[in-house]
Amino acid sequence: MGRWEPNARGRLERAALDLYGERGFEKTTVAEIAGRAGLTERTFFRHFADKREVLFGGSAMLQDMLTGAVADAPAAATPLDATAHALATIGAVFEGRREHSRQRQAVIDANAELRERELIKLAALASALASALRLRGVPDTAAALTAEAGIAVFKVAFEHWINETDERDLPQHIRESLDELKAVTAST
Amino acid sequence: MGRWEPNARGRLERAALDLYGERGFEKTTVAEIAGRAGLTERTFFRHFADKREVLFGGSAMLQDMLTGAVADAPAAATPLDATAHALATIGAVFEGRREHSRQRQAVIDANAELRERELIKLAALASALASALRLRGVPDTAAALTAEAGIAVFKVAFEHWINETDERDLPQHIRESLDELKAVTAST
Repeated sequence: MGRWEPNARGRLERAALDLYGERGFEKTTVAEIAGRAGLTERTFFRHFADKREVLFGGSAMLQDMLTGAVADAPAAATPLDATAHALATIGAVFEGRREHSRQRQAVIDANAELRERELIKLAALASALASALRLRGVPDTAAALTAEAGIAVFKVAFEHWINETDERDLPQHIRESLDELKAVTAST
Repeated sequence: MGRWEPNARGRLERAALDLYGERGFEKTTVAEIAGRAGLTERTFFRHFADKREVLFGGSAMLQDMLTGAVADAPAAATPLDATAHALATIGAVFEGRREHSRQRQAVIDANAELRERELIKLAALASALASALRLRGVPDTAAALTAEAGIAVFKVAFEHWINETDERDLPQHIRESLDELKAVTAST
């Protein structure tokens, strides 16, 4: 087997998700993942530090995109507008990945340690988002609340998106959840 | 030493927090906590399952109060009003506990595992709050978003409360954060 493997990362990810779904995350070994993908363990470890990273390897990129989009939002954008813009940007990354996202979520939901990891990931996203808003001059409290509310919107939208079968994409679900948030907070 | 120890739980909690602060959470043993409180390990284990429970033993009560207060809110209350009412109810529990809360937070902030546990506790609170809102007939999405936003408000308010030295109590900080949330979500 040569050192160059076309789309090795994608094949490993695919094989891992299938195996995690079939046998459970704990019972799957890296050797099995590599075997299913037709690759070596050595190749696996060139792409992922461990089998958990197959599920969470995209977090840093998501976080960078999120904070980058907040920084790029027009100077006149309100904190919530900048956040909405950033969420739409990361939402677009999931285009064509609904089935993959569903499978990943099922694996996470089935494992307490992975559910905790996912919570930590979302908390880190909220914290990075708040920092990005502060860099725009948004005061502390407003930044923290906008960020937490924004991540809540993303979480709820994501859940809807993977549980529904219609054509609405993730950015559309994000817009709807954001409108819903505005409606519930305006109701008093 | 008799079996009946006046305020044993409070003394153990006090001793534990002091030791966690002095030596770090990991390095403190149950024997040391009991010794500092002038009690036996046996008494410690009558009150807490382990040294982590000293920090998180109140979670179940908080969650019960939160969901109970949502259920008790007037039928006409909007989801956000019911949530505000519930947050004020749990906020009142912290009356006179600012120094304790500060000390507890410093211990948690210093330890990655405890920070994760705290995130999980807050996520469980959000989830219980959403369920309580659904029981009032609030639709799924609105319930989830109101609950997440409500817990974000609590988190931000709590942080302000422990970091400030003025006279405003936690319920007051909660009201202010809630107003701030309304302001940021109304800004678009």
